[in-house]
Amino acid sequence: MIYKTGKPKTKQHYREFKIMSQHVVVIGAVALGPKAACRFKRLEPDSKVTMVDQSDLISYGGCGIPYFVSGDVSDASQLQSTSFHMVRDAKFFKNVKDINVLTNTKVRSIDRNKKTVTVKNIITGQEDDLSYDQLVLATGSRPKRLPIPGVNLKGIFTVSNLNEAMAIKQGLAHGEVEKAVVIGAGAIGLEMAEAMADLWGIETTVIEVSDQILPGIISPNMARMAQCHLEENDIIVRLDEKVQQFHGTDRVKRVTTDKGIIDTDMVIMAVGVAPNGDLAKAAGLEVSQSGAIVVNDRMQTSDPYIYSGGDCVEIPNLLTGKPGYFPSGSLANRQGRVIGTNLAGGNARFEGAVGTFIIKAFEMSLASAGLSLGRAKAEGWDALSVFVSQFDRAHFYPEKGLMYMELIVDRKTEKVLGVQGLGGVTDAVFARVNAVAAILKYGATVADIGNLELLYAPPFSAAMDIVNALGNTAENVLRGKNKLIDVDQFAQWWRDREGSDAVFLDCRGWGNAKPVSEKYPDDWKSIPQDELKKRMDEVPRDKPVVLICNTGVRSYEAQLNLKQKGITNTYNLQGGMATVKKWGLDL
Amino acid sequence: MIYKTGKPKTKQHYREFKIMSQHVVVIGAVALGPKAACRFKRLEPDSKVTMVDQSDLISYGGCGIPYFVSGDVSDASQLQSTSFHMVRDAKFFKNVKDINVLTNTKVRSIDRNKKTVTVKNIITGQEDDLSYDQLVLATGSRPKRLPIPGVNLKGIFTVSNLNEAMAIKQGLAHGEVEKAVVIGAGAIGLEMAEAMADLWGIETTVIEVSDQILPGIISPNMARMAQCHLEENDIIVRLDEKVQQFHGTDRVKRVTTDKGIIDTDMVIMAVGVAPNGDLAKAAGLEVSQSGAIVVNDRMQTSDPYIYSGGDCVEIPNLLTGKPGYFPSGSLANRQGRVIGTNLAGGNARFEGAVGTFIIKAFEMSLASAGLSLGRAKAEGWDALSVFVSQFDRAHFYPEKGLMYMELIVDRKTEKVLGVQGLGGVTDAVFARVNAVAAILKYGATVADIGNLELLYAPPFSAAMDIVNALGNTAENVLRGKNKLIDVDQFAQWWRDREGSDAVFLDCRGWGNAKPVSEKYPDDWKSIPQDELKKRMDEVPRDKPVVLICNTGVRSYEAQLNLKQKGITNTYNLQGGMATVKKWGLDL
Repeated sequence: MIYKTGKPKTKQHYREFKIMSQHVVVIGAVALGPKAACRFKRLEPDSKVTMVDQSDLISYGGCGIPYFVSGDVSDASQLQSTSFHMVRDAKFFKNVKDINVLTNTKVRSIDRNKKTVTVKNIITGQEDDLSYDQLVLATGSRPKRLPIPGVNLKGIFTVSNLNEAMAIKQGLAHGEVEKAVVIGAGAIGLEMAEAMADLWGIETTVIEVSDQILPGIISPNMARMAQCHLEENDIIVRLDEKVQQFHGTDRVKRVTTDKGIIDTDMVIMAVGVAPNGDLAKAAGLEVSQSGAIVVNDRMQTSDPYIYSGGDCVEIPNLLTGKPGYFPSGSLANRQGRVIGTNLAGGNARFEGAVGTFIIKAFEMSLASAGLSLGRAKAEGWDALSVFVSQFDRAHFYPEKGLMYMELIVDRKTEKVLGVQGLGGVTDAVFARVNAVAAILKYGATVADIGNLELLYAPPFSAAMDIVNALGNTAENVLRGKNKLIDVDQFAQWWRDREGSDAVFLDCRGWGNAKPVSEKYPDDWKSIPQDELKKRMDEVPRDKPVVLICNTGVRSYEAQLNLKQKGITNTYNLQGGMATVKKWGLDL
Repeated sequence: MIYKTGKPKTKQHYREFKIMSQHVVVIGAVALGPKAACRFKRLEPDSKVTMVDQSDLISYGGCGIPYFVSGDVSDASQLQSTSFHMVRDAKFFKNVKDINVLTNTKVRSIDRNKKTVTVKNIITGQEDDLSYDQLVLATGSRPKRLPIPGVNLKGIFTVSNLNEAMAIKQGLAHGEVEKAVVIGAGAIGLEMAEAMADLWGIETTVIEVSDQILPGIISPNMARMAQCHLEENDIIVRLDEKVQQFHGTDRVKRVTTDKGIIDTDMVIMAVGVAPNGDLAKAAGLEVSQSGAIVVNDRMQTSDPYIYSGGDCVEIPNLLTGKPGYFPSGSLANRQGRVIGTNLAGGNARFEGAVGTFIIKAFEMSLASAGLSLGRAKAEGWDALSVFVSQFDRAHFYPEKGLMYMELIVDRKTEKVLGVQGLGGVTDAVFARVNAVAAILKYGATVADIGNLELLYAPPFSAAMDIVNALGNTAENVLRGKNKLIDVDQFAQWWRDREGSDAVFLDCRGWGNAKPVSEKYPDDWKSIPQDELKKRMDEVPRDKPVVLICNTGVRSYEAQLNLKQKGITNTYNLQGGMATVKKWGLDL
């Protein structure tokens, strides 16, 4: 018996609720489970908590697996340790947290009427019933496996748990692997590819079925820039390619796709994860079509005595208003705390997520928050995106790097729907995308971004930071003041220049324009922007003119200069030559 | 004549407004002036703009002066250049922007009825009247000068403009300076101190009249931690000290204060700035008591044909709702754009600021946003602050550093009023304070911070980031679950331990506790938190117990363990030994 009478309804009501000692059972002991269990025990130390997990390795930082595989994290126990170097095993939970953990134990079923779970020790085979007052489902997700021939050969791994990670690392450390194939160019696939190529020197091929890396997360142009960086670091990236079969007698030796055959000694399958909702479904709890457990904003399932969170649930997407699936160790931890509070009669809320992403790959960081342009359009917005490249510090500050950012906005409401950034290995991209991510749920507009009060000092930022520049550029585009062309379209026009009218006009100083201009004397015209007013009659009035500078600032100025003289069929190359180069187009 | 009829009222109205060619005069050509002028010209290229400045050095990054003095920026022209290396002088503005600049020209007065300004060339002495349709006051601020004897001696500088910066650097480069005194431990004073001590090896003393560095910006504990870092880098910091006189025959050679005499070869006076509102006041415009020009959210003065922004105006403090003074090159740029838009008949708004600050000093970054605890209390809030120390990346990630953050909240509404952070020279502090700064104006609460959706990947952050930990800690304190003691109070209790009852209980593992415990066997007790339940009877029940661990996490757990056994007179040292050490208390 948890509540004395009825259900608590208000915050006040919750606080005054008299909670009696109870037994909470937590199914799953990796991220959300331990967080919920510990939080609850801190609030209600006299209650009893039992945590059940099918593995003997619990409470580890799963997101650290690629860094363990690479060797950055030397020992698996580090992923399982607290920041003060205590290993979070069953003994730790007992001694430090007064929480009982049943490892190597599978939950067979839940009887909601009796309020019991039937568990089975997978080593001894013994079955038991545990009665609960409240239950937490922290069953997480499972990696998807391609349903193709040969999928059960040795040497084919998913990145699902620490046991599997140790098997992968053992293979690498024993020198068994000269070539590896990663299937899926999502975050985990790319992190694993870097781990293998960079630190073990393995010839690594990433195969992605979509036409870009990080599909659905990062815009095609950002993805292509990131792909160039991976290729510069010897990762082989194959897009638009579908894996059809694995070959080998005992171990995998070859992968065939719809485009060819690739020899390999190891395969990492990183083709996404699916929520583990089966147990919930079997118990009659509400589960979505995709198999995710349905919860309210208190992280309660359709049974008020059962909570759930983390990789096995859906939560609202705060931008679309629809249910979203956001598997993330970070969300799991925060939701775990909310559950712990509510188990103790509190009234904590988890309202949803906008969706955030960041990855480090070699000397690059790449991040996003909210919706990509494609996703925004698919959701019905009349969306556009703008792209800006700019230094990450004051341009006069000696140590600095170029950043590339994209802002996705709704034309009608001018609401910001998403943001993306690519830069070096500093926290510069992290800092900008964090700030924009934080205000997405408040319905921030283009004007809010233009005036966003970022911290300013020359060693950290520019007086008009790239984020402000993004907002201002979007405003100029929305008002019809800045007519843009993106790097992809620019590349197409450049390739097709023989059969087209387009004029390519370089607005940079002659020093920068010279090499390209001399290489393509018929195709690449140079008029520095500060000479444009005097040389206006050199600009053709009857052809589309593509305006080019280093980052897009002077070409915008040139576009306005031309407009003033009635030349309006112009296109400002957003992100400028800095972006063209990063994107991999060699002029 | 600007507007055809009446005043535009709605956004739509503004857009449809037919603007005729006009003459805009801009007084001041450093940050806001050029931004407003250029933005306006981009929107209205057929209009005429005249920019007037009393110097011949214009449009430079004033915030870069300390980096120019240090030598990080080798040449003054870099501060005056665009990111594409064009020097923004009068010729640049004429050729590239079609803006006329009158350098070395002072504005004597404004005649609002005639819509003219009277200007005087300070070299030729010639006076002229310029008529305007709309006027922009970008008169900025002036450095305050102490009204004490000797203040006009040579070698005493303020950090007010590029000419003065060049004179300072010349003095340093010529080897004339072995010792320097900086008066004022605000941002500019500290940046100048670092520039002189670090790169020129000058014995540098900072004298501050207040009892901490960065008064009003940073909390006393953060300030003391930062001061320790300055002192480790050979800056001499003297607090609570008032400069009374400068001595020397021609050049300054000595400074006397209420506490002593300091020999010096140079003095940098960085005791704050005052808005230049005199011209506006003389023209009958509304000016605040402190002399700042009063503007509305369109950056219009009390005369609708005159705009103003930057260091000479007051804007709303979005936290207090009161007028605030926020001199900042970054705000000036953004306000300049708003003015440029509005000069062209637009309807851009600048709603105010929460106030942000960041500084790099040697190997430290230090940042804040919103109100400090002291300021929040002075403004009438029942405010409290919590302090957390944590790694800036996943604790298992190899490269990481400790960060220290403070959150200031209102007890009643649980609204967040301010945030501060101190860390290494990465962008880690910048990233966190940026994100919290961004949501302050939306009335973010403690719960919003606890669930703030920061980007997560082990190379950038922890699954439960320090920002989330700040929100959660604040919640625990507000609910009475976590009773804290800050490092300052801890240090007092430790110093007074002979005459007090207080017991100091180290909850870390014996390895960490041993050195302190063996040094102070009578005063420093060690019970590792995981042994606490078994050794509960060793904890005195009749004395206040200070609980100590490395960062405050285990001591919190220990506090709950003790509470369960009825021992409640306990105090959790927030930020733990990591903070004690950083704060300069050597145990």
